[in-house]
Amino acid sequence: MNNLQPPEWSWRDASGDFVHQWVKPLSEGSVDMVLYGAPLSRSSISVSGASLYPMEFRKMWKGFSTYNFDEDLDLSSYAVRDAGDVVMHTTDILLSHERIEETTRELVSTYNDATTCLIGGDHSVTACAVRGVKRAFPDERIGILQLDTHLDVRDPAELGPANGTPIRQLIDGGIVRGEDVVNIGLHGYFNSAPLVAYAKEHGIRMVTLRKARELGVAHCVEQQVEELVKRVDRVYVTIDMDVLDIAVAPGVPASTPGGMTAEELFMSLVRIGQHHAVRHIDFVCLDPSRDAATNATVKIGVYAWLEFITGRVLAQRRK
Amino acid sequence: MNNLQPPEWSWRDASGDFVHQWVKPLSEGSVDMVLYGAPLSRSSISVSGASLYPMEFRKMWKGFSTYNFDEDLDLSSYAVRDAGDVVMHTTDILLSHERIEETTRELVSTYNDATTCLIGGDHSVTACAVRGVKRAFPDERIGILQLDTHLDVRDPAELGPANGTPIRQLIDGGIVRGEDVVNIGLHGYFNSAPLVAYAKEHGIRMVTLRKARELGVAHCVEQQVEELVKRVDRVYVTIDMDVLDIAVAPGVPASTPGGMTAEELFMSLVRIGQHHAVRHIDFVCLDPSRDAATNATVKIGVYAWLEFITGRVLAQRRK
Amino acid sequence: MNNLQPPEWSWRDASGDFVHQWVKPLSEGSVDMVLYGAPLSRSSISVSGASLYPMEFRKMWKGFSTYNFDEDLDLSSYAVRDAGDVVMHTTDILLSHERIEETTRELVSTYNDATTCLIGGDHSVTACAVRGVKRAFPDERIGILQLDTHLDVRDPAELGPANGTPIRQLIDGGIVRGEDVVNIGLHGYFNSAPLVAYAKEHGIRMVTLRKARELGVAHCVEQQVEELVKRVDRVYVTIDMDVLDIAVAPGVPASTPGGMTAEELFMSLVRIGQHHAVRHIDFVCLDPSRDAATNATVKIGVYAWLEFITGRVLAQRRK
Amino acid sequence: MNNLQPPEWSWRDASGDFVHQWVKPLSEGSVDMVLYGAPLSRSSISVSGASLYPMEFRKMWKGFSTYNFDEDLDLSSYAVRDAGDVVMHTTDILLSHERIEETTRELVSTYNDATTCLIGGDHSVTACAVRGVKRAFPDERIGILQLDTHLDVRDPAELGPANGTPIRQLIDGGIVRGEDVVNIGLHGYFNSAPLVAYAKEHGIRMVTLRKARELGVAHCVEQQVEELVKRVDRVYVTIDMDVLDIAVAPGVPASTPGGMTAEELFMSLVRIGQHHAVRHIDFVCLDPSRDAATNATVKIGVYAWLEFITGRVLAQRRK
Amino acid sequence: MNNLQPPEWSWRDASGDFVHQWVKPLSEGSVDMVLYGAPLSRSSISVSGASLYPMEFRKMWKGFSTYNFDEDLDLSSYAVRDAGDVVMHTTDILLSHERIEETTRELVSTYNDATTCLIGGDHSVTACAVRGVKRAFPDERIGILQLDTHLDVRDPAELGPANGTPIRQLIDGGIVRGEDVVNIGLHGYFNSAPLVAYAKEHGIRMVTLRKARELGVAHCVEQQVEELVKRVDRVYVTIDMDVLDIAVAPGVPASTPGGMTAEELFMSLVRIGQHHAVRHIDFVCLDPSRDAATNATVKIGVYAWLEFITGRVLAQRRK
Amino acid sequence: MNNLQPPEWSWRDASGDFVHQWVKPLSEGSVDMVLYGAPLSRSSISVSGASLYPMEFRKMWKGFSTYNFDEDLDLSSYAVRDAGDVVMHTTDILLSHERIEETTRELVSTYNDATTCLIGGDHSVTACAVRGVKRAFPDERIGILQLDTHLDVRDPAELGPANGTPIRQLIDGGIVRGEDVVNIGLHGYFNSAPLVAYAKEHGIRMVTLRKARELGVAHCVEQQVEELVKRVDRVYVTIDMDVLDIAVAPGVPASTPGGMTAEELFMSLVRIGQHHAVRHIDFVCLDPSRDAATNATVKIGVYAWLEFITGRVLAQRRK
Ligand SMILES: [Ca+2]
Ligand SMILES: [Ca+2]
Ligand SMILES: [Ca+2]
Ligand SMILES: [Ca+2]
Ligand SMILES: [Ca+2]
Ligand SMILES: [Ca+2]
Ligand SMILES: [Ca+2]
Ligand SMILES: [Ca+2]
Ligand SMILES: [Ca+2]
Ligand SMILES: [Ca+2]
Ligand SMILES: [Ca+2]
Ligand SMILES: [Ca+2]
Repeated sequence: MNNLQPPEWSWRDASGDFVHQWVKPLSEGSVDMVLYGAPLSRSSISVSGASLYPMEFRKMWKGFSTYNFDEDLDLSSYAVRDAGDVVMHTTDILLSHERIEETTRELVSTYNDATTCLIGGDHSVTACAVRGVKRAFPDERIGILQLDTHLDVRDPAELGPANGTPIRQLIDGGIVRGEDVVNIGLHGYFNSAPLVAYAKEHGIRMVTLRKARELGVAHCVEQQVEELVKRVDRVYVTIDMDVLDIAVAPGVPASTPGGMTAEELFMSLVRIGQHHAVRHIDFVCLDPSRDAATNATVKIGVYAWLEFITGRVLAQRRK
Repeated sequence: MNNLQPPEWSWRDASGDFVHQWVKPLSEGSVDMVLYGAPLSRSSISVSGASLYPMEFRKMWKGFSTYNFDEDLDLSSYAVRDAGDVVMHTTDILLSHERIEETTRELVSTYNDATTCLIGGDHSVTACAVRGVKRAFPDERIGILQLDTHLDVRDPAELGPANGTPIRQLIDGGIVRGEDVVNIGLHGYFNSAPLVAYAKEHGIRMVTLRKARELGVAHCVEQQVEELVKRVDRVYVTIDMDVLDIAVAPGVPASTPGGMTAEELFMSLVRIGQHHAVRHIDFVCLDPSRDAATNATVKIGVYAWLEFITGRVLAQRRK
Repeated sequence: MNNLQPPEWSWRDASGDFVHQWVKPLSEGSVDMVLYGAPLSRSSISVSGASLYPMEFRKMWKGFSTYNFDEDLDLSSYAVRDAGDVVMHTTDILLSHERIEETTRELVSTYNDATTCLIGGDHSVTACAVRGVKRAFPDERIGILQLDTHLDVRDPAELGPANGTPIRQLIDGGIVRGEDVVNIGLHGYFNSAPLVAYAKEHGIRMVTLRKARELGVAHCVEQQVEELVKRVDRVYVTIDMDVLDIAVAPGVPASTPGGMTAEELFMSLVRIGQHHAVRHIDFVCLDPSRDAATNATVKIGVYAWLEFITGRVLAQRRK
Repeated sequence: MNNLQPPEWSWRDASGDFVHQWVKPLSEGSVDMVLYGAPLSRSSISVSGASLYPMEFRKMWKGFSTYNFDEDLDLSSYAVRDAGDVVMHTTDILLSHERIEETTRELVSTYNDATTCLIGGDHSVTACAVRGVKRAFPDERIGILQLDTHLDVRDPAELGPANGTPIRQLIDGGIVRGEDVVNIGLHGYFNSAPLVAYAKEHGIRMVTLRKARELGVAHCVEQQVEELVKRVDRVYVTIDMDVLDIAVAPGVPASTPGGMTAEELFMSLVRIGQHHAVRHIDFVCLDPSRDAATNATVKIGVYAWLEFITGRVLAQRRK
Repeated sequence: MNNLQPPEWSWRDASGDFVHQWVKPLSEGSVDMVLYGAPLSRSSISVSGASLYPMEFRKMWKGFSTYNFDEDLDLSSYAVRDAGDVVMHTTDILLSHERIEETTRELVSTYNDATTCLIGGDHSVTACAVRGVKRAFPDERIGILQLDTHLDVRDPAELGPANGTPIRQLIDGGIVRGEDVVNIGLHGYFNSAPLVAYAKEHGIRMVTLRKARELGVAHCVEQQVEELVKRVDRVYVTIDMDVLDIAVAPGVPASTPGGMTAEELFMSLVRIGQHHAVRHIDFVCLDPSRDAATNATVKIGVYAWLEFITGRVLAQRRK
Repeated sequence: MNNLQPPEWSWRDASGDFVHQWVKPLSEGSVDMVLYGAPLSRSSISVSGASLYPMEFRKMWKGFSTYNFDEDLDLSSYAVRDAGDVVMHTTDILLSHERIEETTRELVSTYNDATTCLIGGDHSVTACAVRGVKRAFPDERIGILQLDTHLDVRDPAELGPANGTPIRQLIDGGIVRGEDVVNIGLHGYFNSAPLVAYAKEHGIRMVTLRKARELGVAHCVEQQVEELVKRVDRVYVTIDMDVLDIAVAPGVPASTPGGMTAEELFMSLVRIGQHHAVRHIDFVCLDPSRDAATNATVKIGVYAWLEFITGRVLAQRRK
């Protein structure tokens, strides 16, 4: 795994009740989750500093304990290992993408029993990561659960592999079938008609946020995962943080009014985390340089990731 | 229509899937909606830059497609025509008001079959616009549906025709009956007792937000419109953006805690848009110069306007 | 009451329909509520400007009328008297704490029939105030209703009487029994496991926000107060404003995602205010120097306080 | 002086070493300077909250002592008396202007030996004040020393008496001769050619900032006052705060790059204050609602005013 | 010139005294200056939104008149023609760079008598533009006058053609000799020792800001240009806006303390503009999305550009 | 040195050309400068987050190289060793003060040949540090060079050992003679008359900024140090960052208009650093939580510290 480098600094304190004391470097011990960053956002259509998120994500750990009050559950027995960041090239976007793909292939192969969690970067990294998974498990059918305001099926022939294109890259590239992509959180006026036509044509399952709310967002997400799991061998979950409402996620350049509340995302992730077929997850498009003075969005990012882990631990317990 | 001038710049691109490519100048073709701005806010009791909204509203169009995901509906067949802005005088507020009234009279007379949509400006413009409608249709009884945190019945004898007075101007001026004014969204401690006494005395129908939420805000709004329509010939809808909660609408100087969510406003406007008796709408009191760095409030403003149009298109379809 | 000083300025206007015209200095007339400030936040673990809140709280009164639209209720008959602020020492935190305790003792003794309302300051002031109440009524059993994201049971042996310790001070000091402390609003990853162990061991009643929402937060709060009232003689209510979600309360340094909405807090306070056993309330940890440009958090602070008073007036009426 | 009202609140503390303890209401004792506010900015061409400045100016006094370190001089013997604010009408700009004019006439007549200091408000108030002075002293020739980035000779026939027009109002109205207007601080590209043509035609003396800096700004200002004093009976000084550079005065909507430093303004005002022919001064166009989080611009405003007073005291001493 | 596209919108008003009314599209009439944009900043080492500058630069024109007060000079006779922006690819940085190079070659060939002015984008665009000039005039020796806090000689072998590398690209590529590069404005601790070693080795002429101030920055710049002109056939001027101090240019990601004042830059540009050997200029690295609420940095950008044009007009006059 | 703890994280990279790669922990090798932090600001009269500065100071190192362009000088041979931070108590200010004093005593005794550099915290830490030095060298006469907007001679009898009192603590405590205190940078209206009286009475040497500028600030500082050195055995330099102008140092709560420019401070520190009698320095009162989005103030803080080291290295070279 030549393309991984450790974070530029490390916490001094290795024991205690907080998240920065709990997560260890990859080399140490057994592994439940492999964490790795892809600090790339020059592939974004609009200006984005999402490349800064992996570092800010780690900085924020200190503000979180491993104890979850809602479930009366301590996460500390779950072994999260930080593999560091994929080394990005300054100007060669394709090379950066190849490294993400290759690193993902290596990590998912090596740590087959672990969950992998990729911290973006922009949404272009998802196409790389899913291709990496596919190369590791070429005979498996991969499903994608996407929480996003956008379809991400813009044409790479026009834009190159930019952040608006990953789902189309994967469908057109034969990595994932359209019918195996579920997108929940769509709303409003943020996808143009031709993109919707493409999605319909390829059978992408689209659930608008209003529709999801009729059932309860978390419940709807759970149902959709269960449906998806019937068709596929493993599920890759991708959380575009712009699925959140602009009032709660100011630090996501493409967030919009009419989006998800933080609580809806949190409760969905507890459910998602409990599904054994979910094997990979990423969080993308959070730009810490645009965040509120309170760092509210980065805090939501860490919280959301811990909710997913809560789901994992709840599932372990049940076994 | 001597008092209208085109926006100071125009989009280069006239075709495509986005709102700025869809809206045309008034001179071109058939008309479903006539859009016009009243960039006036020196009539505000408190400092306001709502005069900047018509321009920022148009700038934001580029971020919205004409396709509505919630209804799987493309708005592009609905002909919105931009008449430009009413020319405001720098210091003569009464003259500016007269021009809004006269321009409204001309537009509603000329485009009788179209819906008119006025972009304020502060709430003082509503009194002018409703008077203009009344002059065009002197024999019709006009109802007002107001979404507002305030009653707007302060005394023009004291303040002149300021933004706190429009409903009182219209009632005292015999343009609209108190009983034909429905205000939904009132809450908290933002109207003083004497103003409430005036409103009760004149029979204004007041629905607090908590009350509306018992039924569901959108449903309650729909019910109220249906009740109102029984009594009046046409309905003028006025959306004071300060009806929104201060956390979601930082760019409205008078927004407060305890206000409406964006989603409640959006769903209400889809319902409102479907009523044939609703003929006129305005959006007022949004000050882009106070908006968040994300431009969240202006984005809500455009979204809300598109939700109303969605309602119009849904109604057209049904016919 | 030597340790009280009047605010550094006073409103000129003493009559009218707004809150700043309604609240009078303590010396004047009968008293329903005694208001006093404790401008202390150098006792905070993290940097806090909550010491600035008593002054900003008073400045914001001008933006609120005494009329409550939701209940169609004018609060002006309820006599709120402002005792001013406890004089804080610049560097001697213990001395400041003693003054808060002693002043509280004096005020609750002198104005036994009135409700006391303390405006913090950080949460360390609550321990002082409750001790003051206990000294005034040594034979009464005091219950605490706490709305907070945190347990506040960190160890004063380590930190001194800092803002993370008040509940532990009171339990370890024999002032309040653990079982008489009810904390509603806990959520997420913001309390470490050892603190939760302490709370369980001492029988603190803990209700997570998700749990509270199943019943409705306000309804749940009411139920909990009713339960508590069965066991205790008087209830002290303490509102740590960080119970609010970070998106609605940017001006609270410790606010987090996943917290309460403003409306949930408001409706809870109307209920709380109606209980006769509730005799004391404080609002703490709001730092106006971190507030949004809209002053949204300070506005929520004043609104919340008025909702509690609304509850008081509703209860008076029923009698 | 019916049109004056006291500030809405008053400082409690009346003795001490700070500015808020030193300035007294107008009714008390002898008078060296009469201070009055004109909280009007709806007459501004662009959106302005300069109407908020008189109140914020007074609030900031607490941060300043009466002792001037640069001159080793205590100002406390100089009697500043606060007459309050001229009552503004909410929508009738002409009426507000008349009141400023009439109030100025009354104050300069009544307190003939005192210096008057008007706190704006936008620059439209200067035309009113100078007319008021002229009505009080119809036989005197009035000179104007203007520190401004702009000429303020736009045409009132087009704009009405807006903030871009005061100098033209006074010249065209025969109140002041063009040759008796000295404007220092002009620079860059912020006055259009036709306005410069008007200024040249009427003999306005224009000194660019670069030119002034060749001599030293304060020294140049002094020279210009001395020249002016030879021609006129009394000098009215008007400080448009937009003469300051945009980097130092973010709270002035029209401030620009290439403007004056705070220190250049301060040293100029010490010199200006020392001239006995200078009888009136105003400070205009500072919008506190646009100020930096540090309140840097309001602090400059108070500092600048104190520098002028320092000049006055230095002159008194010499006598 | 296939790779040029017009701005996405255009000003309505084509006559008047302001900059937006003066600049015309390239197709119209004679040409003194050809203006073109290169909205590229994904080539920046750090996150940058400098790609947004060409559009914001044009939007800001409305705030500037064509009359320069310092020189009593109207620029309106000087024909500035806007060629629009080079079309950038979303992810293929090399292709974008080629288009800038080719477009520059075409423009400087076609408009040989005009000055070209490129609006970046980040500093990587300068290497492209200078190569384009070289291709148009292969037999001419090109000198570079660079105002920058950095040397920009990082190694493209490591970074690719990123914004830290343009000078090295040009020297190593044989386009420009090291001795023909003059960099003024260097200061502090913002260039690492190995880069300085490279610069010394290649004979780059480096003038620190403190050194330049001893003579006066503008005067020093003029001297350096005169020296440079002796050696080269034409001078390409590149203004990295990060040469400005961080206090005056918050909207430049790499600005630092200890940098140039706006006035020093302005006066330098008046001098630079007067040299006939200066044929090309660019302004780079200004990120409007990081600018102050006052837009101070964009205003400095437009002002600086006008100062250069002032120099041009002064030189024309002398002829 | 029991009261020191290492920073909570450490940089991974230990070699390279940047400051974070150059500074080593105290345990490693020879020592030219001992660096230590005192993260205390709950002793501030006004709210301050200066306790956050030691950590933010270290974080910012990455943005600075060790090469100084102005002097063509690489600092890397100068051995800076980071001793970490003095452990502060959460609520016991006196205990925290004692630890700073004791730690300083230990460090200056142990590393007698090295320069000590203390990073505050607020100005209260200076009194502790100077007392620590005095205890280590009881027979030496200590001089203080203070760059400050304030005298810091408020009465500890009233405030306790707060940040406005350190100079008075030292004079009244017999640690330093009034005549051995030189304060440069005083200006404006920020010290009350009684404090100035105290300073005069005790012979504190006060140089206003305007006075210093007559000679050139750096030159004046140098002269004053030379004068001071004649009288004392060693000089302790204390830089209150509020000596800087509010426009350049927004992240200092007490900064004011009329203060020093960054360049004046920088050049002064190069001179100060060259004096052999200067043995100790501190930088205080910088609150990173109030800094601009650009982090301009923290950048100035690091830059200023490096300028002092530049002086040290220049002096070493001369030997
Ligand atoms: Ca996406
Ligand atoms: Ca998206
Ligand atoms: Ca209204
Ligand atoms: Ca309203
Ligand atoms: Ca608490
Ligand atoms: Ca708490
Ligand atoms: Ca002016
Ligand atoms: Ca001006
Ligand atoms: Ca640079
Ligand atoms: Ca550069
Ligand atoms: Ca100090
Ligand atoms: Ca100080």
